[in-house]
Amino acid sequence: MYAKVEDLSIIKLYYTSMTDSLNNLRHSLAHLLASSVLELFPDAQFGVGPVIDNGFYYDFLLPRPLTPQDLPKLEKDMRKRIGQNLGFKREELSEAHAKEKFAKQPFKLELIHDLVTKGTTVFDELENEQSTPNATITSYTTGNFVDLCRGGHVESTKDIPADAFKLTHIAGAYWRGSEDNQMLQRVYGVAFLTKAELDEYLHMQEEAKKRDHRKLGQDLDLFTFSDSVGKGLPLLTPRGSVIRRELERYTVDTELARGYQHVYTPPLAKTDLYKTSGHYPYYKDTMYPVMKVDDDELILRPMTCPHHFMLFKDKPHSYRDLPLRIAEISPQFRYEKSGELTGLMRVRMFTLADAHIFVAPEDAEKEIASVLKLIDEMNQTLGLKKGVDYRYRLSLGDRADSKKYYKDDDAWERAESVLRRVLKGQKTPFYEAKNEAAFYGPKIDVQVKKVNGQEETAFTVQYDFVMPERFNLEYVAKDGKMHRPVVIHRASIGCLERTIAFLIEHYAGELPLWLSPVQVVVIPVGLKHEKACLKLGKELREAGLRVDVFTADQSVGKSIRIAEKQKSPYMLVIGDKEVKAPKLHVRERGKAKLRLVAKKTFIAELLKKIQTKAKK
Amino acid sequence: MYAKVEDLSIIKLYYTSMTDSLNNLRHSLAHLLASSVLELFPDAQFGVGPVIDNGFYYDFLLPRPLTPQDLPKLEKDMRKRIGQNLGFKREELSEAHAKEKFAKQPFKLELIHDLVTKGTTVFDELENEQSTPNATITSYTTGNFVDLCRGGHVESTKDIPADAFKLTHIAGAYWRGSEDNQMLQRVYGVAFLTKAELDEYLHMQEEAKKRDHRKLGQDLDLFTFSDSVGKGLPLLTPRGSVIRRELERYTVDTELARGYQHVYTPPLAKTDLYKTSGHYPYYKDTMYPVMKVDDDELILRPMTCPHHFMLFKDKPHSYRDLPLRIAEISPQFRYEKSGELTGLMRVRMFTLADAHIFVAPEDAEKEIASVLKLIDEMNQTLGLKKGVDYRYRLSLGDRADSKKYYKDDDAWERAESVLRRVLKGQKTPFYEAKNEAAFYGPKIDVQVKKVNGQEETAFTVQYDFVMPERFNLEYVAKDGKMHRPVVIHRASIGCLERTIAFLIEHYAGELPLWLSPVQVVVIPVGLKHEKACLKLGKELREAGLRVDVFTADQSVGKSIRIAEKQKSPYMLVIGDKEVKAPKLHVRERGKAKLRLVAKKTFIAELLKKIQTKAKK
Repeated sequence: MYAKVEDLSIIKLYYTSMTDSLNNLRHSLAHLLASSVLELFPDAQFGVGPVIDNGFYYDFLLPRPLTPQDLPKLEKDMRKRIGQNLGFKREELSEAHAKEKFAKQPFKLELIHDLVTKGTTVFDELENEQSTPNATITSYTTGNFVDLCRGGHVESTKDIPADAFKLTHIAGAYWRGSEDNQMLQRVYGVAFLTKAELDEYLHMQEEAKKRDHRKLGQDLDLFTFSDSVGKGLPLLTPRGSVIRRELERYTVDTELARGYQHVYTPPLAKTDLYKTSGHYPYYKDTMYPVMKVDDDELILRPMTCPHHFMLFKDKPHSYRDLPLRIAEISPQFRYEKSGELTGLMRVRMFTLADAHIFVAPEDAEKEIASVLKLIDEMNQTLGLKKGVDYRYRLSLGDRADSKKYYKDDDAWERAESVLRRVLKGQKTPFYEAKNEAAFYGPKIDVQVKKVNGQEETAFTVQYDFVMPERFNLEYVAKDGKMHRPVVIHRASIGCLERTIAFLIEHYAGELPLWLSPVQVVVIPVGLKHEKACLKLGKELREAGLRVDVFTADQSVGKSIRIAEKQKSPYMLVIGDKEVKAPKLHVRERGKAKLRLVAKKTFIAELLKKIQTKAKK
Repeated sequence: MYAKVEDLSIIKLYYTSMTDSLNNLRHSLAHLLASSVLELFPDAQFGVGPVIDNGFYYDFLLPRPLTPQDLPKLEKDMRKRIGQNLGFKREELSEAHAKEKFAKQPFKLELIHDLVTKGTTVFDELENEQSTPNATITSYTTGNFVDLCRGGHVESTKDIPADAFKLTHIAGAYWRGSEDNQMLQRVYGVAFLTKAELDEYLHMQEEAKKRDHRKLGQDLDLFTFSDSVGKGLPLLTPRGSVIRRELERYTVDTELARGYQHVYTPPLAKTDLYKTSGHYPYYKDTMYPVMKVDDDELILRPMTCPHHFMLFKDKPHSYRDLPLRIAEISPQFRYEKSGELTGLMRVRMFTLADAHIFVAPEDAEKEIASVLKLIDEMNQTLGLKKGVDYRYRLSLGDRADSKKYYKDDDAWERAESVLRRVLKGQKTPFYEAKNEAAFYGPKIDVQVKKVNGQEETAFTVQYDFVMPERFNLEYVAKDGKMHRPVVIHRASIGCLERTIAFLIEHYAGELPLWLSPVQVVVIPVGLKHEKACLKLGKELREAGLRVDVFTADQSVGKSIRIAEKQKSPYMLVIGDKEVKAPKLHVRERGKAKLRLVAKKTFIAELLKKIQTKAKK
């Protein structure tokens, strides 16, 4: 297991705002870890040991590979040091003194060199930060261990709760994150202010592991990958396809009822279209290679907007047509690095519940509010609670960065204030994030909380004042003149693949009845009951339910265990008694007790749950 | 307008079975046409003049371009010659004599050369036929005109009905169909045994022109093309998308009820997958270019089979799982030459209602019979009658052609006899076609008759004994051993784009209610009725109907004309009277008389029609 690239972005904290007590605690534990490693390996060479989300790590070059068995030993040694009430002694060093002090630590010498010449470190460089040469060089000493460090520590190890940290795992990590450099060993730890917090975190991680959609996706036979097809290109099995189809139909039907017009457009186009749109320079690294067909250059589309613009331009429009909402369950292609591909969460082809709304600028605010209302409604149907499972983020541009953002300060001001007003009108908390906008305008991100506690952007609503110019979109306004609409890009239910992944994890595989691939499993006690089971299965299917009829090849106990493992919402076991009985013995997911229900009632009950998209 | 490549395949008739009277008649008319052209242009050079579907053509090199005004003149001259009771005098020629006779006709000299050296002609070559050098050279003389010709003529021009033929149009055509050669002028004619047949044919052509889905598609705002997107890549508008969505859902629901399992797989894969399947050499010219992604070569898929095989292979199967029917509404990509692209009928990306059935060889016959039953049922729903609108063709392989067909004579025998038995069991007429099979096995083609009288393969059912070997597909049979299934490739409702085109033409745009993009148009008499119209529209929409509410911007008369042009099945005009009245005045497509119906009854009536997918 290798360290993830994302971790590096966190390292900024190490050299900047190491102020709050939790960070100081975690950073001090990194030093204690290094101190214990030095005890075990006197010749250890040290890389860096920053604070990260929920904890810390430290990179080492060691004479032998660490094993999981080393971690408890290191923890024990760290606790011993905590008990010794050691201080963190700061010292300012001249360049010469620093080089002498770390003479046997080549990685530290490199860092010193960077600090002196560029005032920066390898990690700051990755972040493209300003450099200020001749920064002060400082070291911190704790017991036997001296580290080159900008600081941010507890006063004494006695301030560290000995029972609120844990070393979690070991991974390989290249020095400076580059494959050209030496591979070091990275030890990860998590740390909190109290044992209760640590326990909760570890429990959540355990839970996240159990709920991991990649694991459940395999256990529940929902999707698969094939080496012959290609990386990041999931094949949904019949069971997984049920979820996608239900989500797709629900999205289309809901949007049609809300005045959207759904279309089908081809998932490729001439490369020039993305040059006109201005997407090309921003997306070319994540686009698929160009295909030369006759004299044209075609490319798989990384977004739907230009196709929908072509439909808008296909005929003239008046103000009476607006807002014109063109929607599509849209296949899209983006090249993600193979190391970043993650089950259905990050793929190389995805299907976005996309739409582009052409609206008069004065009506944009109202329209965006109804988009958020639609998203709230759909999230509610999916069982996601606002403020708990998701929250809004207002993603802003940076007026100073005309390379990343289209230059039009006034337009940005106006657009951002429209979005801010909409969000304030929602009366739900939101937060603002700088430098997260699209190149063509600010956006509202719907941030969904994953089971591992991380937040991910699931859906977005973007305010676009650039494309209407570039594509010369226009409509006849009430004044009889041609006006320019604003375009709202929005994804209601997001990318279907990712939403399926979210839902699998959110429900730990126990999907609501309407999304369950198989809704009822019928189990025969013995061979002689198979016929009755097939008949019952047929009846339930004709009523509109998704049914799986098992055979008697295995024992009833085993059949029940299989159905339970498949998270089947309902099981009906049919034996001598049940074949004759007028009522069904219903075994419901998560309920120990069997229920005795008339068949007709059972069917009606399930159909109602499906129709209302009940959560449980 | 250029001659189509398909025409060339017909030319075989010219040199082979020119036996039946209609062909003789048409061929003789081609000679008369050449004769009349010679009269008009004494220096004319002659290409070939074969029989084609419904008539004939002749290619000429002339000193000036022909105009449509020339055609009646030529017709008149041809009729004059018919009246002269001219014979068709056959003569066998030595090579020297032939060359002397056609000394001033370079195209004929080329043909003579081919006949002598290869015993074949340019067109036979295109067909890859066997050559037999030193074939007999014959000429036919009619009046002033001598032609190099293998024969098949009427005895005298008096056998030609003078009122049953017509010269229809002029097109450019390269000599030998190659762009490297000279461009000739081709004159097309149609000819029948009676004037009544000619009139019927011409009427059908007129009708076909009116029903042309490209014209109706634009008039009814169903689909469009964009130069910026690319050739052969249709964008379905909101209206056209309704048709596709309805067809798609109907197909999926019907197939699910018949035990198919619908899946979603990515429309691209590694190129190697198509090398394993053996498709690559046969399809590479019509496949899109390879895309290099990391170290892999990816390609847009031209068919779905390998993806479904990967799903089949994803887990072990027993005989109890079979027949296993994996289906998909599958996007596919094939490069068609730009000259062959035709609206939605021939495109570069299409969506096939595809399926692959894995079945034990002994159950294949039964399974194919149920596939045909499904196709019949679906065709019936679409309003296509067996024996009238479509018929079955049994497409066979050629044991001798091991380049085109996988070599396994026994397997071919078995497979063909299975398909023949199924077709015989259907008790509906079918015909057999040699050399039309897939490389991996014989197939049953569902041949749909287009409004212009031409037949086109709409759906196919293929028996595949090759892929299961190539992909090592297997299942555990009752005997506990691994067995090889047969794969049935089938398209139930065909390619959605093409089926939409068929249906538009079949119904002349007047689609059945369930497929109509807009089902009810509500028209206000004046401005003051707009509100009532909007209210009514909302009510109808909430009942589940697709409704368009017009504004009062134009007169009622104009609104009705627009709705009629859009082929709207129902119109409701709302004025003073209707706002107050308890009943609706219903104007039904194709019916002159208004009906007075209670709103509730109207809604129930329409919903029932939609639910039962009524034809009218």
